[in-house]
Amino acid sequence: MISSIKRLLIGRPLKSNEIGEQKLNKTKALAILSSDALSSVAYGPEQILIVLVTVGAAAIWYSIPIAVGVLILLSALILSYRQIIYAYPHGGGAYIVSKSNLGVNPGLIAGGSLLVDYILTVAVSVSAGTDAITSAFPTLHGFNVEIAIGFVILLTLLNLRGVTESASILAYPVYLFVLALFLLIGVGIYNVTIGGVPTEAHTPIGTPVAGISLFILLRAFASGSSALTGVEAISNAIPNFKNPAPKNAAKTLMFMGILLAILFSGIVFLAYSYGITPSGEVTVVSQIAEEIFGRNFMYFFIQGTTALILILAANTGYSAFPLLAVNLAKDKFIPRMFLIRGDRLGYSNGIIILGIASIILIVAFHAKTEHLIPLYAVGVFLPFTLSQSGMMVKWLREKPEGWIPKFIINTMGAVICLLVTLMFFLTKFSQVWSILIFLPIIVLLFHRIRKHYEAVGEQLRLTTCEPTLPIEGNVMILPVAGITHVVENSLNYAKSLSPDQIIAVYVSFDREDEKRFEEKWKKWQPDIRLVTLHSPYRSIINPLSKFVNTVEHKAREGNYQVTVVIPQFIPKKGWQNILHNQSSLLIRAFLLYRRDVVVTTVPYHLKK
Amino acid sequence: MISSIKRLLIGRPLKSNEIGEQKLNKTKALAILSSDALSSVAYGPEQILIVLVTVGAAAIWYSIPIAVGVLILLSALILSYRQIIYAYPHGGGAYIVSKSNLGVNPGLIAGGSLLVDYILTVAVSVSAGTDAITSAFPTLHGFNVEIAIGFVILLTLLNLRGVTESASILAYPVYLFVLALFLLIGVGIYNVTIGGVPTEAHTPIGTPVAGISLFILLRAFASGSSALTGVEAISNAIPNFKNPAPKNAAKTLMFMGILLAILFSGIVFLAYSYGITPSGEVTVVSQIAEEIFGRNFMYFFIQGTTALILILAANTGYSAFPLLAVNLAKDKFIPRMFLIRGDRLGYSNGIIILGIASIILIVAFHAKTEHLIPLYAVGVFLPFTLSQSGMMVKWLREKPEGWIPKFIINTMGAVICLLVTLMFFLTKFSQVWSILIFLPIIVLLFHRIRKHYEAVGEQLRLTTCEPTLPIEGNVMILPVAGITHVVENSLNYAKSLSPDQIIAVYVSFDREDEKRFEEKWKKWQPDIRLVTLHSPYRSIINPLSKFVNTVEHKAREGNYQVTVVIPQFIPKKGWQNILHNQSSLLIRAFLLYRRDVVVTTVPYHLKK
Repeated sequence: MISSIKRLLIGRPLKSNEIGEQKLNKTKALAILSSDALSSVAYGPEQILIVLVTVGAAAIWYSIPIAVGVLILLSALILSYRQIIYAYPHGGGAYIVSKSNLGVNPGLIAGGSLLVDYILTVAVSVSAGTDAITSAFPTLHGFNVEIAIGFVILLTLLNLRGVTESASILAYPVYLFVLALFLLIGVGIYNVTIGGVPTEAHTPIGTPVAGISLFILLRAFASGSSALTGVEAISNAIPNFKNPAPKNAAKTLMFMGILLAILFSGIVFLAYSYGITPSGEVTVVSQIAEEIFGRNFMYFFIQGTTALILILAANTGYSAFPLLAVNLAKDKFIPRMFLIRGDRLGYSNGIIILGIASIILIVAFHAKTEHLIPLYAVGVFLPFTLSQSGMMVKWLREKPEGWIPKFIINTMGAVICLLVTLMFFLTKFSQVWSILIFLPIIVLLFHRIRKHYEAVGEQLRLTTCEPTLPIEGNVMILPVAGITHVVENSLNYAKSLSPDQIIAVYVSFDREDEKRFEEKWKKWQPDIRLVTLHSPYRSIINPLSKFVNTVEHKAREGNYQVTVVIPQFIPKKGWQNILHNQSSLLIRAFLLYRRDVVVTTVPYHLKK
Repeated sequence: MISSIKRLLIGRPLKSNEIGEQKLNKTKALAILSSDALSSVAYGPEQILIVLVTVGAAAIWYSIPIAVGVLILLSALILSYRQIIYAYPHGGGAYIVSKSNLGVNPGLIAGGSLLVDYILTVAVSVSAGTDAITSAFPTLHGFNVEIAIGFVILLTLLNLRGVTESASILAYPVYLFVLALFLLIGVGIYNVTIGGVPTEAHTPIGTPVAGISLFILLRAFASGSSALTGVEAISNAIPNFKNPAPKNAAKTLMFMGILLAILFSGIVFLAYSYGITPSGEVTVVSQIAEEIFGRNFMYFFIQGTTALILILAANTGYSAFPLLAVNLAKDKFIPRMFLIRGDRLGYSNGIIILGIASIILIVAFHAKTEHLIPLYAVGVFLPFTLSQSGMMVKWLREKPEGWIPKFIINTMGAVICLLVTLMFFLTKFSQVWSILIFLPIIVLLFHRIRKHYEAVGEQLRLTTCEPTLPIEGNVMILPVAGITHVVENSLNYAKSLSPDQIIAVYVSFDREDEKRFEEKWKKWQPDIRLVTLHSPYRSIINPLSKFVNTVEHKAREGNYQVTVVIPQFIPKKGWQNILHNQSSLLIRAFLLYRRDVVVTTVPYHLKK
């Protein structure tokens, strides 16, 4: 039954050789990998204005030069990542690039930072999208957490179905959003050029503003550059592209950069031209849409697609997290289970863990995740900086033909990203300090996991260890709880293996019962030695474990192997198990982990 | 470490023969078994007034005759239960009495009803007590659920420590509450007799009231009789008393009845004399206390002890639920685990399940459980009716000397309880209908569980079944994942038992890997047959299980037993298990439950 529910939710299992069909073409790739970056134009320009307006409405004109700064940063990032794509055609996230050029620890800092960041991406964007929806339908307002969790589950299922299927479904909202904003910007600019907007609406560029400071401008720039989170997604996901993967990925990246630049600068320009100031209740995009179209169909179209793309931005996390986890798991820094492909060939453990982690965040923050945004931005720019620096080192070290312009591009990228990171620490320290605590902890954890895997590998390898001792004989211990078919069955089994000795063990809670059982046993199996253990504290495991230990110590001297044979009856239906004390399970787990004995379970299947 | 935390929380384990020290004397028994009944005077009188005041303040005088009715009901119940105690000295809850006189199904209805009721008791009274506390400290108001859960956990731990210890701690608040109400009633009545209360405060008894109807009076009576929930607790808990248990229990019951009668009638009388009408914000007891003492120390003493006893009322559930569960489990109607005594000799599974179930209720209802009260009252009066009827049948059937007065007492009890039950259905159907759904379901479940246990017993008994077939030989299947010490170890073990055949099985996900492994194996273990299974869907269990099935079918023809020997390495520390895919656990569970094969786990303990 479980497997048929699974099929219904995520579809039939795919064979390993069907993997080619799960690759993305450029149109679909753009849709599922750029939703995070594109969605940020819905809040990026607003972040700039919010900082500027603290000085006064006259300071709004600074948004234009700041936007130019963000565009330069964007160009540097896109060009840098384009170079990374070609240099690391098997998927070069910040982790791979930093690790191979700067060393393991910078790589782990980048990887750990991004791993946490993708979880934040999902939690933050789903919460933001849910907020947009419940603002439109106030009756739903009490159910923010539930709705957000519902969306996370939906995204998780879509991604478990596989990348192409989720791409087909998710492409529409992304392109509709782009279309909606293009219409908005087009009509808006037309209005401005024909003089439909009064020039008094905004102060001209260059007007001196009292109270403006470098600190404010830096803060506004840092806030605006949070719109650039998500541009690294494509370079992580090269393995998901159709062949030739690097070329397709590079083209997709360039196209995404152009789209992002147009949308971002368009929104900033319109906000400036229409003299819009940010307000607590209505977003800047919504104000622009209302100025241009009024509250008609177009307005709701823009609002609706914006809400959708905010939720879909989470999908970038779903594309990037499992692939990054695979890279970390290949290097043994995180558990091996992230390497396993699920029924639909996606790395399902990564997808599921991401879903669970972001649901935990949503519940913990009651779906109010706005103040996680600066943390999230730092978590992106730190790996950006590291990967660009890694590329600098690479060019310097390898010096391939024509390396100098490439070096310059990456250096520019590195410097700008470093500056942005520092600006965040400088201007928003109270919101981002926690990264200084948890990143070292994560990196330490990575190292401990790696150390463990290496120790295990070392101990399992045949060549490096002393050969295991030969087994000279076998002793079998049979815990019995009564004289039944289950016990008979196990006893027959033990006898069939002709061990050197079989000992039946009975744990009793009172003396009378003990005597009675000993007599019954003598009649039933006079040849099998019975040991009774009195348990004054009513525990079965403790006396049994002590007894096993004693036998084991004696057996070890003669290189005898001790086996505990556990009789277990299996009810016909699974639910019936709760009606029986699962002492055999407990005994098995305890002995296996605490004592050096083999544990054999002999099932007795009930027919009714 | 876990065991030392356990010791800290519930104390050192007790030996089975220390059970006598865990018995209750009368003073302690009264405290822990009557807190539910006594606490209900804090809300019972108010329930009557709430109904009457819907007609008008003039109708308040009817509370006096209604209280007389409740007192008659109380006397009938106490006398009836006294008879039950002597007739069923081993603890006669409604379940035992109904079952042995009316038949299994009436017994199960009574038992199931009480089982659910004790859970409701805990949830309702802890919520009410928490409400009283957070009303006094409004800053805590947002944390009602958390505080209530905290109290449930505290009560669970206290009860896991054992009955005498919890009794010692819980006795003080109960007796303080009784003292506080005695002072209140004494001073109040003194004031009334010296004429300190204006007679205009209340309409005289007998004043005709427009709009009063039999329906209203019945409703008020039913509401008031909810104050009698909890009187059955003592008769359930006879095994917890010191010897002579029935005599001590009967005395405790009588004393509780007298206390309850005094407190209940005192509060009703004062409320009438002071002309108090119920208000949404302040409880009736609180109003009386304020009238008599003003807002001084005495007032807060009364309020404080009332809040405490409301929480402690939950303890009645903790005393009664595990004992009822033991009786049901002895008759195999609920899982056997309820029969197990914990470290401190209490029936810990019952205590823990009760705690968990009431926490679930508290969370589900956000600690607002008031509207569960009528349901809870019906759940008490239904078993009351059944047990009194059972006693009627018993006297009629056995006719011992002097049975006629006993028969009359139980008949009165039965009739009144039946009437109260019917009144609840008549006047509060919308709140109690659900009992008509869940009781039949519970009774059905009881029967299914019993049927399962009987079927199992039948199948395990040696005398009734055909003897199991002898085992002619052994085939061992060894799933291998690589060439390591773990595999070597398991192989040595299998060889030491000299089975007729050993088959190593390797599941591969791609053809090249398969070939490579076959070659390596041939070099390493040329004598052991290796079977490779190709798994296009990357599942290990499916192909392995199919293979095991084939081998098993062939083996069964010759009465051969198939054993699957699973190599498993055990990391040094428990947490390290999450770093390894637990495929061996899955394989084991799957094969054991789905196939008729023995599963042997050969551990390889890592040293680092």
